[in-house]
Amino acid sequence: METGTGVLPTLIILDNYLKEWLLEDIGRGDRTTQCLLNQNATEGKAQWIAKADGIVAGLPIAARIFQLLNQKIDFTVLVKEGEFCHSGTVIAQIRGSLDALLTGERVALNLAMRLSGIATLTRKYVETIADLPTLFVDTRKTTPGLRILEKYATQVGGAINHRMGLDDAVMIKDNHIAAAGGIGKAITCIRSRIPYPLTIEVETENLQQVKEALEYQADIIMLDNMKPDIIHEAVKIIRQQDKKVKIEASGNVTLETIRTIAKTGVDYISSSAPITQSKWLDLSMKIN
Amino acid sequence: METGTGVLPTLIILDNYLKEWLLEDIGRGDRTTQCLLNQNATEGKAQWIAKADGIVAGLPIAARIFQLLNQKIDFTVLVKEGEFCHSGTVIAQIRGSLDALLTGERVALNLAMRLSGIATLTRKYVETIADLPTLFVDTRKTTPGLRILEKYATQVGGAINHRMGLDDAVMIKDNHIAAAGGIGKAITCIRSRIPYPLTIEVETENLQQVKEALEYQADIIMLDNMKPDIIHEAVKIIRQQDKKVKIEASGNVTLETIRTIAKTGVDYISSSAPITQSKWLDLSMKIN
Amino acid sequence: METGTGVLPTLIILDNYLKEWLLEDIGRGDRTTQCLLNQNATEGKAQWIAKADGIVAGLPIAARIFQLLNQKIDFTVLVKEGEFCHSGTVIAQIRGSLDALLTGERVALNLAMRLSGIATLTRKYVETIADLPTLFVDTRKTTPGLRILEKYATQVGGAINHRMGLDDAVMIKDNHIAAAGGIGKAITCIRSRIPYPLTIEVETENLQQVKEALEYQADIIMLDNMKPDIIHEAVKIIRQQDKKVKIEASGNVTLETIRTIAKTGVDYISSSAPITQSKWLDLSMKIN
Amino acid sequence: METGTGVLPTLIILDNYLKEWLLEDIGRGDRTTQCLLNQNATEGKAQWIAKADGIVAGLPIAARIFQLLNQKIDFTVLVKEGEFCHSGTVIAQIRGSLDALLTGERVALNLAMRLSGIATLTRKYVETIADLPTLFVDTRKTTPGLRILEKYATQVGGAINHRMGLDDAVMIKDNHIAAAGGIGKAITCIRSRIPYPLTIEVETENLQQVKEALEYQADIIMLDNMKPDIIHEAVKIIRQQDKKVKIEASGNVTLETIRTIAKTGVDYISSSAPITQSKWLDLSMKIN
Amino acid sequence: METGTGVLPTLIILDNYLKEWLLEDIGRGDRTTQCLLNQNATEGKAQWIAKADGIVAGLPIAARIFQLLNQKIDFTVLVKEGEFCHSGTVIAQIRGSLDALLTGERVALNLAMRLSGIATLTRKYVETIADLPTLFVDTRKTTPGLRILEKYATQVGGAINHRMGLDDAVMIKDNHIAAAGGIGKAITCIRSRIPYPLTIEVETENLQQVKEALEYQADIIMLDNMKPDIIHEAVKIIRQQDKKVKIEASGNVTLETIRTIAKTGVDYISSSAPITQSKWLDLSMKIN
Amino acid sequence: METGTGVLPTLIILDNYLKEWLLEDIGRGDRTTQCLLNQNATEGKAQWIAKADGIVAGLPIAARIFQLLNQKIDFTVLVKEGEFCHSGTVIAQIRGSLDALLTGERVALNLAMRLSGIATLTRKYVETIADLPTLFVDTRKTTPGLRILEKYATQVGGAINHRMGLDDAVMIKDNHIAAAGGIGKAITCIRSRIPYPLTIEVETENLQQVKEALEYQADIIMLDNMKPDIIHEAVKIIRQQDKKVKIEASGNVTLETIRTIAKTGVDYISSSAPITQSKWLDLSMKIN
Repeated sequence: METGTGVLPTLIILDNYLKEWLLEDIGRGDRTTQCLLNQNATEGKAQWIAKADGIVAGLPIAARIFQLLNQKIDFTVLVKEGEFCHSGTVIAQIRGSLDALLTGERVALNLAMRLSGIATLTRKYVETIADLPTLFVDTRKTTPGLRILEKYATQVGGAINHRMGLDDAVMIKDNHIAAAGGIGKAITCIRSRIPYPLTIEVETENLQQVKEALEYQADIIMLDNMKPDIIHEAVKIIRQQDKKVKIEASGNVTLETIRTIAKTGVDYISSSAPITQSKWLDLSMKIN
Repeated sequence: METGTGVLPTLIILDNYLKEWLLEDIGRGDRTTQCLLNQNATEGKAQWIAKADGIVAGLPIAARIFQLLNQKIDFTVLVKEGEFCHSGTVIAQIRGSLDALLTGERVALNLAMRLSGIATLTRKYVETIADLPTLFVDTRKTTPGLRILEKYATQVGGAINHRMGLDDAVMIKDNHIAAAGGIGKAITCIRSRIPYPLTIEVETENLQQVKEALEYQADIIMLDNMKPDIIHEAVKIIRQQDKKVKIEASGNVTLETIRTIAKTGVDYISSSAPITQSKWLDLSMKIN
Repeated sequence: METGTGVLPTLIILDNYLKEWLLEDIGRGDRTTQCLLNQNATEGKAQWIAKADGIVAGLPIAARIFQLLNQKIDFTVLVKEGEFCHSGTVIAQIRGSLDALLTGERVALNLAMRLSGIATLTRKYVETIADLPTLFVDTRKTTPGLRILEKYATQVGGAINHRMGLDDAVMIKDNHIAAAGGIGKAITCIRSRIPYPLTIEVETENLQQVKEALEYQADIIMLDNMKPDIIHEAVKIIRQQDKKVKIEASGNVTLETIRTIAKTGVDYISSSAPITQSKWLDLSMKIN
Repeated sequence: METGTGVLPTLIILDNYLKEWLLEDIGRGDRTTQCLLNQNATEGKAQWIAKADGIVAGLPIAARIFQLLNQKIDFTVLVKEGEFCHSGTVIAQIRGSLDALLTGERVALNLAMRLSGIATLTRKYVETIADLPTLFVDTRKTTPGLRILEKYATQVGGAINHRMGLDDAVMIKDNHIAAAGGIGKAITCIRSRIPYPLTIEVETENLQQVKEALEYQADIIMLDNMKPDIIHEAVKIIRQQDKKVKIEASGNVTLETIRTIAKTGVDYISSSAPITQSKWLDLSMKIN
Repeated sequence: METGTGVLPTLIILDNYLKEWLLEDIGRGDRTTQCLLNQNATEGKAQWIAKADGIVAGLPIAARIFQLLNQKIDFTVLVKEGEFCHSGTVIAQIRGSLDALLTGERVALNLAMRLSGIATLTRKYVETIADLPTLFVDTRKTTPGLRILEKYATQVGGAINHRMGLDDAVMIKDNHIAAAGGIGKAITCIRSRIPYPLTIEVETENLQQVKEALEYQADIIMLDNMKPDIIHEAVKIIRQQDKKVKIEASGNVTLETIRTIAKTGVDYISSSAPITQSKWLDLSMKIN
Repeated sequence: METGTGVLPTLIILDNYLKEWLLEDIGRGDRTTQCLLNQNATEGKAQWIAKADGIVAGLPIAARIFQLLNQKIDFTVLVKEGEFCHSGTVIAQIRGSLDALLTGERVALNLAMRLSGIATLTRKYVETIADLPTLFVDTRKTTPGLRILEKYATQVGGAINHRMGLDDAVMIKDNHIAAAGGIGKAITCIRSRIPYPLTIEVETENLQQVKEALEYQADIIMLDNMKPDIIHEAVKIIRQQDKKVKIEASGNVTLETIRTIAKTGVDYISSSAPITQSKWLDLSMKIN
């Protein structure tokens, strides 16, 4: 995949969210706009403008937000989803019913600003290791209610998605290991009960655990919070035995450390930073 | 109000959100936990620990998230909502069904980390002008779907809430003014149609607009993106005529500029920074 | 605002209600119509006729009800929303799929009859004091589930809306005063915690309370169940001190008493009578 | 059934409505109560008092409304559902969390006042013909969203319910007859397609139609808007041929006309008056 | 009604179900199709083919499922709803957006296969007694969530529907009789409280109960699990007294026994076999 | 996993379904039970009895259905979930409010009968190959709305679940291959865009396709509708190259053919037969 292409959720999934979000802001009615324009079908034009440098994400979703208020709104995107834009760039032009433009403005901007902020920081991580084979992946640390869209934004930024929820892959953490009485027992028990196409990832804290995960044929071994030299050692041990098991490093991943970690040879580096450490990208709407 | 007290939404409002957020993560089932502990009522204990310095917010909501999975979960908060905690502080202790602890962990932490991050940055803004009479207020730039909780977090941080949506106050912006053909016409038209207890705020860009808003008896005059000396001039003009109209400054509000703006004598300074510029406060859960 | 113009809620708010109401009547299927016309696309024409004299309200919403059953229904309104109609007036013409006409008839009529009844009685109150500066306002005594539409109907009838719910303005009543330990304490506590554009109204029962509300700068003072001469006295006291605080009278408001109350000089008189004392305006549908 | 016993809907049906209605009033939060009592578990006591003479209905539902806000609210009903109460009667005592009492008050009272108003007027109609064998029944003219509760109220008032919606019985009206090409064709077509336990009622406008409905074995024959002597004639014709078919009169039913109509010997008289012509019964809540 | 015509539920009822079912399968996104065709508007054509002999039912609903994913899908049905098709018959042709075809395929086929299986077995029962006056009816044994569609399928197969739920007719079973203290008491109590157009059916186990049901004027008498000669005897007893009461036989109804039961002269034979004993009719979709 | 242990979905997922299903049957009210027992808190006892031999599944869910009507219902399961029961076995005892027992009976039985029927047929398939290493898996051919419970039932019957929906694994079918221009291109494109823990299965129709899927490192290769000797050949080719790729056979799987297919050495045999070919297991409830 070329950097910056995200897979948009289908409308049948999105629309329920977008309607809820519009209703959250509108409440019992947009007093300002409706009292001013009541039953008065004025048309208007508007531009969306980037007010800071960054990767723009979420414009097709912003378009849909306006269209849920008025089917005939024409929202023309002027930049590619995932494109880097300089401050001042006109990124979209909108034309249609003025009340829909005014009522939908805040929700649409809020969403696009949040997603663009995520995509922008994601891109920085991705570019830092772009020449290396290691891939950058996201996590389940996402804002409640925005999982699929925030993960869409990390994808637009160039990341690979990790599992989307508790049900599309297994992740065995320290507490599960403790409850099961060891990595082997946990894998065996879970393997027998899950849908068989699902993969099992084990979070390991030391080389001993890495070996146990390997012995019980985990599909993915996560090296959690290990020092780079230990990670390197773990990669060697794993690759001697198994060419296919995927290796993921996690913990203490920053723009400063990521390149060192990538050079250990792990397949994936996961980090919640694009979600938890990013600021919103400033965008604004100007009505002509 | 002492700094840091937020007004928690009633459960009948909250529960619908919290259930949606749990289902977003769980999907068709928590494969790891359920396959391991299926119908096995193991009890467990856990601690929540701050991994960074900051203001903690959202613990009563985190408690409710676990209780929606299992009514009998005991979530004991060990710090005051809105209290500054150093990294390493144990902020809560949880006791109850192990599967509820494991399945609810991520959603509860995600929410509390986001809210605590907002409260932490809000507090910095608030403290910068704490000795001045000017109050710090939030905006409608909030993450879609989280409006009431993010505004709860700014309140915990010490901010005053601005309007909660498009329906509990009027805000006349440049586009409304243009559509109405002037500030006076906009105020007159809207005043005649809104629920009468609602207040009308006008966003002004220059002193001419300030005077027009004053003449038509706006309840709140927002001075948008004005330089401090112009703000000061505007405050003088307004106060000469009217003691009660509220004056709000907005635009270019940073930790560096806020004190200068506050000294102009405005009543309120609004900023979306605590929402759009904050990082999540790192919290983690450790099962004993 | 010219008498009789209401601000229609946006469709994104209305549609959820209208669908629920159609489903309430249809249940598992309109046995009569569907068994007769099953998959048989007969077209039909119908008229809506006023069967009594009154103010007609809700026709744009009735139109939408039919359109939710069949997008192509053409519902042409023949009178102005809020216009007084004599019995026998044809108020709308409808053309389209016969099964949608028959299945939607009852729900659409029920709603329009209820709203027209409210608008009709509201108009009587409004006209009684039309030459005086006092305005007539509604209350929160509305049929559960119909708040925004019943308040739309009072607006069509010429009333001003009071607050729409518990969240867009504060109303401090006797019980709140008792719980807080006095009007002053209640205002101070609440003022510090509400969104700052919200106004605070205090319900007062005597002149002593009026003075306390005034001292603590309530935005609206309600004079509850006071005799006209006491109301007059209260208005004098308030206006001596404050030109801007709004004064509302409430209690024992009937078509007989309202003029006397208005002459005391209060700004607003609130009454639930248009909602709680009105009968439905009889409307019927005749298929040609 | 003794007069005044209604069959309460099960909670699994009611709760969805009641929650919606609470949220309609609360919106984003009860600013007054929550800002005053935030996280402060004050207990309170209150009384419900009738402020006018009438039949009280809906108290068990009012109780549930409070309990949805706080499970532990104790709402003790002091009069029998359907009992006639004089103004001043204390009809219920409530004890529990003060914030739940204050937040739920309006919704609970609004519902009970509406239902009691319906029951009160229903009872007048019922008593007018209480010594005759004819029964008084309601119609589908009900407030959108309140069908099952308004019909519960007519039952409490002593009426018999007519069909609850478009799906639990067939009613062939003039428009259906026209579409089918006659009463006979309409009955035959519909009879072949409906669930077989359902009954078919035909609305007739003259004796010719009565005979046709009889010939095609309608289960119920409605005599619509006929003069008493024609009704009497119709009853004779029908009873000569069929002992079991039910006869219903409808149209122009008032407290003045109902006795005359009943004396024609019809089995049922239907009227929407208790729903469309009733005023709310005034009830109030007093916190001690 | 000609054999095989079902009355399709209106779209306002159906759409909520169909959207839920699509979301059940899609979850957070159709990974295969969306990752392949992301934002790439390829058009496609497909055929639906019967892979076994049987009655086809549900094609108009399948069409709607695709259209909820993409309004422009053209789904052309090539056989009559309820028509017997031989294996290999092309029953529909579809044209439109390829991603909608691929994403909707499974849900649409699952539903149509289930409904066609039901219609196919229903038809066998119906044809076995087609020359006799007795009619074949379904029951409330239906798959949770599919009541209206499974009953639509039995209707397409030629059956008459029994009641659709607990609310559109009364069925007094042994447990109700026991609770009431006899058939007579149960009928009397229930008759006084139900909507008056509803009918009362009594489940009887012996001739004594038949006589009691008859005496108290049950509308429908069900002869439950009786031997054919007892059924015959019951029919005689009932018909001597009452020409109109409907007689239903139930229990031990198989393709082998149904003809014998029908010959006893009962009006209706009810059986859940078409729902509980049928296999899905194999249908498949082939994209060209 | 011992045969017959299913992983029950958490209540937060289940309850929404169960409430919908109760409301589907109850509609506007259980006329029979409520009119008989209105507000009369009679207690009752009941037994659930198997009326045919089979595997019982779904009893914990049946228990929950009753408890949603009345929290205090005690539903004691007397057999193990997944246990084979002979006709006549008492499988559960219930005690509690009689109206909840009567109102919930049909929905609870319908669900348990359907799930038990599925588990019973699943077990037959599983036992036929129980001595061989091949595992039996289900498919996405499930009744709309019942996916998680029907797959729970196949698990109770001893099957392994295949993917639960379109989002937890990738399945590349002929149409996807055609759209992509080959198996290799399809795998490459999808691999780059999916969450990385997800596996990719390719449906192959001949040995050429098997080799291509192998070359592009599909995680699972499905041999679709191949003859046993071709399957055997495919297994040999695959195992020579890759020890870890999973091999699934599908198509023409019956109780007669499954053993022959299993002996080819495939890892999994998938079949929809337990869902599409099973009859409901007859269960009944007897109130004491």
